[in-house]
Amino acid sequence: MKILALVGSPRREGNTDLLVEQILRGSRTSGHNAEKLFLYDYTISLCVDCRECKKGDYVCCVNDEMQKIYPRMEEADLIIFGTPVYWYCPSAKMKLLVDRMRPFVANGKLRGKRAVVVAPSAEGAKACGPLVEMFRLCFGYLGMEFVGEVLVKAYERGEVAENRGEMERAYEFGALL
Amino acid sequence: MKILALVGSPRREGNTDLLVEQILRGSRTSGHNAEKLFLYDYTISLCVDCRECKKGDYVCCVNDEMQKIYPRMEEADLIIFGTPVYWYCPSAKMKLLVDRMRPFVANGKLRGKRAVVVAPSAEGAKACGPLVEMFRLCFGYLGMEFVGEVLVKAYERGEVAENRGEMERAYEFGALL
Amino acid sequence: MKILALVGSPRREGNTDLLVEQILRGSRTSGHNAEKLFLYDYTISLCVDCRECKKGDYVCCVNDEMQKIYPRMEEADLIIFGTPVYWYCPSAKMKLLVDRMRPFVANGKLRGKRAVVVAPSAEGAKACGPLVEMFRLCFGYLGMEFVGEVLVKAYERGEVAENRGEMERAYEFGALL
Amino acid sequence: MKILALVGSPRREGNTDLLVEQILRGSRTSGHNAEKLFLYDYTISLCVDCRECKKGDYVCCVNDEMQKIYPRMEEADLIIFGTPVYWYCPSAKMKLLVDRMRPFVANGKLRGKRAVVVAPSAEGAKACGPLVEMFRLCFGYLGMEFVGEVLVKAYERGEVAENRGEMERAYEFGALL
Repeated sequence: MKILALVGSPRREGNTDLLVEQILRGSRTSGHNAEKLFLYDYTISLCVDCRECKKGDYVCCVNDEMQKIYPRMEEADLIIFGTPVYWYCPSAKMKLLVDRMRPFVANGKLRGKRAVVVAPSAEGAKACGPLVEMFRLCFGYLGMEFVGEVLVKAYERGEVAENRGEMERAYEFGALL
Repeated sequence: MKILALVGSPRREGNTDLLVEQILRGSRTSGHNAEKLFLYDYTISLCVDCRECKKGDYVCCVNDEMQKIYPRMEEADLIIFGTPVYWYCPSAKMKLLVDRMRPFVANGKLRGKRAVVVAPSAEGAKACGPLVEMFRLCFGYLGMEFVGEVLVKAYERGEVAENRGEMERAYEFGALL
Repeated sequence: MKILALVGSPRREGNTDLLVEQILRGSRTSGHNAEKLFLYDYTISLCVDCRECKKGDYVCCVNDEMQKIYPRMEEADLIIFGTPVYWYCPSAKMKLLVDRMRPFVANGKLRGKRAVVVAPSAEGAKACGPLVEMFRLCFGYLGMEFVGEVLVKAYERGEVAENRGEMERAYEFGALL
Repeated sequence: MKILALVGSPRREGNTDLLVEQILRGSRTSGHNAEKLFLYDYTISLCVDCRECKKGDYVCCVNDEMQKIYPRMEEADLIIFGTPVYWYCPSAKMKLLVDRMRPFVANGKLRGKRAVVVAPSAEGAKACGPLVEMFRLCFGYLGMEFVGEVLVKAYERGEVAENRGEMERAYEFGALL
């Protein structure tokens, strides 16, 4: 299985990255092919609601680096959406990507794929309500299957590395995908 | 009272703008001073989670056009967050602004101010769960008072203009602020 | 204006009752007529999903003490739903009442009425997501207007009585209804 | 593995029961031991918030038929919470059971067990926000693992029986538990 992890955090080796990396490591032990993209490395413009993606070839006409990400999402069997919790929701960087997922409504290219959410936050799972609910509804709308969430309490930079329990759980979660 | 409306939609005279404008017109009949900003006119960079705003003067060190918006938010007595519903949440443009509100956590400059949410969507109020819940929690976190929401069913460009009932309700809502 | 407060807590002079009482006291200073019912005093049977209320006179055919509450809800201009937060949602007693509100879908007798939610909990507003969202959607479905929520942190029996700030805020909230 | 399904619907062979039954059938093909309880067959009294379950043996002192259900929940490895969606939340009958789960907070007897939610509704997954969020938070609070949800669009009595796709999906979901 091909796994694509999208990381919407501003820093490498931050909590989001560390948790995603554990999942990917675990998944490779089960023979999966896993890659990771840092969204902050890509220029992703705002959706301008032009609705062009509802016609013709069902593609987005905004010509930016999101065009490099679309094909990788289409090739994946499972997509991990990793983001720190900013204001009870995904980071604006992750939301920029989500807003640009509109072509997938009409072209159905994510239908049947599996989805995972990884979201560390200062308060843990109880602060993730709107974020989880947003993704749940999005996945339903796109015909994706929501197969799991990793919601961990972690605030200081990279502190999750010292939380052996959560690190192991993320690894095992990946191994079982 | 000073009212600031922030519009996170890509288009002028779209449904979000029209509803916000009705509220502002109504509010002026009660003698309020109301102004409106289109966020798409401002370059708002991503929060990089540097946490500098938690120290010293509690200001954001990212030097972009958000710096023009901060003082206007601080001067306002009531802030209207107007945004189309994109994927059950605010538009990424609005989320860029929200993510940059972090200095207000430490400096408390929004404490006690009132807040309103305006969010048109294709499905109406029932698609607004995560968006409303996100704002509710954000306002609570910032010590703002959530005084009302205008969640209207409208999808085609500017179609709400023909919905006399909703347009009048928005106007009256503004008059009662 | 006629105000009806429904209290879904097992105890008199508990936090829910105290907050509701403050709102009612405040409301009376503005000349409103306010009454309060303790739902634990009434036998409210389970909705059996018979759907008889969708036909004929649009009334519920379960003959229990809910029949005493229906007319009072119909006479009220504003209904306060007061409940402790049990498991992130209203108490089962309050949910029994809510489930029996089905006749109002077809007969429209709550349409245009105003609604308020009062919900003390051990964790305060951040534990109230599902409860608030449930009521928001219910009110929308019934055509009621959601005019405010009082979500207070209070766990020990009646401890809110000592929280002067919250008690005054509830009183003022009532006075402004 | 021992699976316990709790059905909070008023009717046998209704949509909730049919979906739960499919999951159980599927699970038996994988060798699991699965049983089902109809909550409407049991008298479950209201939690009176006496807090006795926080002391001593951490048991509920209300002597009713919930006492027959506690040991079965404790023996199970996985619990299925099946309920129709009533007003965006579980039925009051299911909520009666949930409110009585308080002893499990102190005695930790559900910790580590897996949980599944089955909830048919007239509008499908998009009407399930508060219900799913309530269960998500409850499971987190109890230390249970939320392993899946079956949210199906079905309103007429037992109509899901004719929806071959959903029936098969439920069966396979059970087989994979």
